[in-house]
Amino acid sequence: MDGRIAAVGPQDALELRFADADRIDCGGRLLMPGLVDSHTHAIFGRPRFEEQELRAMGLPYMEIAKRGGGIHSSVRDLRARAEDELVALALPRLRRIASYGTTTVEVKSGYGLTVVDELKTLRVIRRLQELLPLRLVPTWLGAHEVPQEYRARGDQGRADYLRLLVHEMLPAVAAEGLARFADVFCEPGVYTVAESRVLLEAARVAGLGLKLHADELQTSGAAELAVALGAASADHLAAVSEDGVRALAAGGTVATLLPGTMLFLGSARQAPARALIDAGAPVALASDFNPGTSPTVNFPLVLTLAVSQLRLTAAEAVVAGTVNGAAALSLAGETGQLAPGFSADLALFDAEDVRELPYWYGDRLCRGTWVGGVACHPFEARFTSQP
Amino acid sequence: MDGRIAAVGPQDALELRFADADRIDCGGRLLMPGLVDSHTHAIFGRPRFEEQELRAMGLPYMEIAKRGGGIHSSVRDLRARAEDELVALALPRLRRIASYGTTTVEVKSGYGLTVVDELKTLRVIRRLQELLPLRLVPTWLGAHEVPQEYRARGDQGRADYLRLLVHEMLPAVAAEGLARFADVFCEPGVYTVAESRVLLEAARVAGLGLKLHADELQTSGAAELAVALGAASADHLAAVSEDGVRALAAGGTVATLLPGTMLFLGSARQAPARALIDAGAPVALASDFNPGTSPTVNFPLVLTLAVSQLRLTAAEAVVAGTVNGAAALSLAGETGQLAPGFSADLALFDAEDVRELPYWYGDRLCRGTWVGGVACHPFEARFTSQP
Ligand SMILES: [Zn+2]
Ligand SMILES: [Zn+2]
Repeated sequence: MDGRIAAVGPQDALELRFADADRIDCGGRLLMPGLVDSHTHAIFGRPRFEEQELRAMGLPYMEIAKRGGGIHSSVRDLRARAEDELVALALPRLRRIASYGTTTVEVKSGYGLTVVDELKTLRVIRRLQELLPLRLVPTWLGAHEVPQEYRARGDQGRADYLRLLVHEMLPAVAAEGLARFADVFCEPGVYTVAESRVLLEAARVAGLGLKLHADELQTSGAAELAVALGAASADHLAAVSEDGVRALAAGGTVATLLPGTMLFLGSARQAPARALIDAGAPVALASDFNPGTSPTVNFPLVLTLAVSQLRLTAAEAVVAGTVNGAAALSLAGETGQLAPGFSADLALFDAEDVRELPYWYGDRLCRGTWVGGVACHPFEARFTSQP
Repeated sequence: MDGRIAAVGPQDALELRFADADRIDCGGRLLMPGLVDSHTHAIFGRPRFEEQELRAMGLPYMEIAKRGGGIHSSVRDLRARAEDELVALALPRLRRIASYGTTTVEVKSGYGLTVVDELKTLRVIRRLQELLPLRLVPTWLGAHEVPQEYRARGDQGRADYLRLLVHEMLPAVAAEGLARFADVFCEPGVYTVAESRVLLEAARVAGLGLKLHADELQTSGAAELAVALGAASADHLAAVSEDGVRALAAGGTVATLLPGTMLFLGSARQAPARALIDAGAPVALASDFNPGTSPTVNFPLVLTLAVSQLRLTAAEAVVAGTVNGAAALSLAGETGQLAPGFSADLALFDAEDVRELPYWYGDRLCRGTWVGGVACHPFEARFTSQP
């Protein structure tokens, strides 16, 4: 059946209709659409584990950066590594992501910040897609930061890097067909709303879909920009304004929330998830898997945070981690639902009730995933008896 | 070597001295004292997964209880189950706890609340100890709540249950040697400080060590009581007073913090971990594994919360989850350290640096545990190459 779901229905009826089909006994447990993780920075070298306790001790980000940490340390690290090495590092990490029930992973570049290193990162993602059944969605994030060598030259350097992004990097990325989306880190001190608009408009012309890191730390109107440009998603949103909430409710842009990052950073602030949902905005959840602020491969833990911290119901959290995650990647008709015609992207959990996913927090209940019907995380027929 | 650590030192020296010893190649990864989880309620029936979203929606605890939820639902559930059934339910849960790197688990009764059902629970723990190499420490928590059938009879019922605890249940528990500690849920609305004192003094006379659920929701002076009675630990402490902090710093009682519970409840409040440590109090961490407020088997995730939410360093968190956890169980010379004479209670993690334990939050890095030198969670020779 070309890896698509042929039918969904009562077992008896399906057994009659598909008498010759292979069978997998799922032990009466929970089979769901595979989780869709629509925001990760999964291509990186060294884990930055020393920063967590420095931050906990109250060290400001600038001080951590001065000591050689922060995003620029991941940039130096990634630039020094060969494509092969980055593939070898990312493979087990992506397999771990799949082992928790995720079947689609968006992966951003953004630790290269040169034409060569951004292309290298995106080629790593392409090679990983050849090696893994997991569905990968590549996003170009050349505008993750302004690289240090350009920052050092002040406004002129900044203008030069923007020119490089628009006139050299973007055309090269588009020419090789290496990315499906373009993304910008829109935040005071990184890229302004005006710069983000220039970059995203150029990306749209080049044929890429749009995403935006929006209103994470300070309110800037980035969410409104994402909606105005018809972006597939606006991500983070811990500091989104009421106007931003209204814009997201009115437009077609998915509001993607990353509560794991807030947990890992020890931040008391969370995105206004209930206000977004109650206003009618489509809300997705993602892991933000990255070496600085969210090194988790456990997507179900993000569902826990969605209920306990963001006050979603379990059903809202699951929709946010499947259907709406797919919408945030413009894959609404392709994955994230168990319905005829959709890709057979499935996750099996050792649970009886979907509410057990956020409940057994931190545990791994996944017992197998399939992408387009192909086993991705191997099936484990190991189920606990339930009370 | 009777399951004890014979020596710790450079590999060359050990190979000369113990030429005939069996070898396990740990791949150059992180071998640590097994984690000590000094506070769980691991013997329960049905998981109460429906309460998490009700709480997230703002439903008060009393309303959840009226709908049949809360602790009394776990009591009804456990009373209806046979010993065998409770053993079968607890076994895979304890194995999952071991799979994350824990080698010692304190397990409380407290969902029985009758002589018969509390003894049944403690016998379940004894049987589990025969079935598992995991080190279990049984605690009698007959004073977890006042059972509904006694509450319904007001002050008289309350007095009757207290009499039952002291004059029937405690002697029966002590006579069978079923518990190492006694614990009381000291909290306004449950047991007062005065009642807790009566119960714990009786338990001490009966030969049990003492623990206390102290100052979780409201400040009551419970921490001071624990210290005054020489309790091994005072647990929770999110609402401990400054006097309580000073008492814990001066006395020999371990302050046991349970940040997972605060996360799962979506509470903004956390115990004053830094104030406790800076004052000189010994701080332990535990999972509080239970079906209502902390259904996690992942102790390393508690280490993450200790750094990100409680502002401990990674080293402080690891000490709190090993050495100090052992002290909270009066096992200070027995487990929780890699030193000659200690029980060979070990955990192997797929990590190079101890800071990776709190860092890769939500993942399972454990590749094997041993208790008294006996494999507990089976050894998995599966290591990722690190950058
Ligand atoms: Zn991001
Ligand atoms: Zn407790």
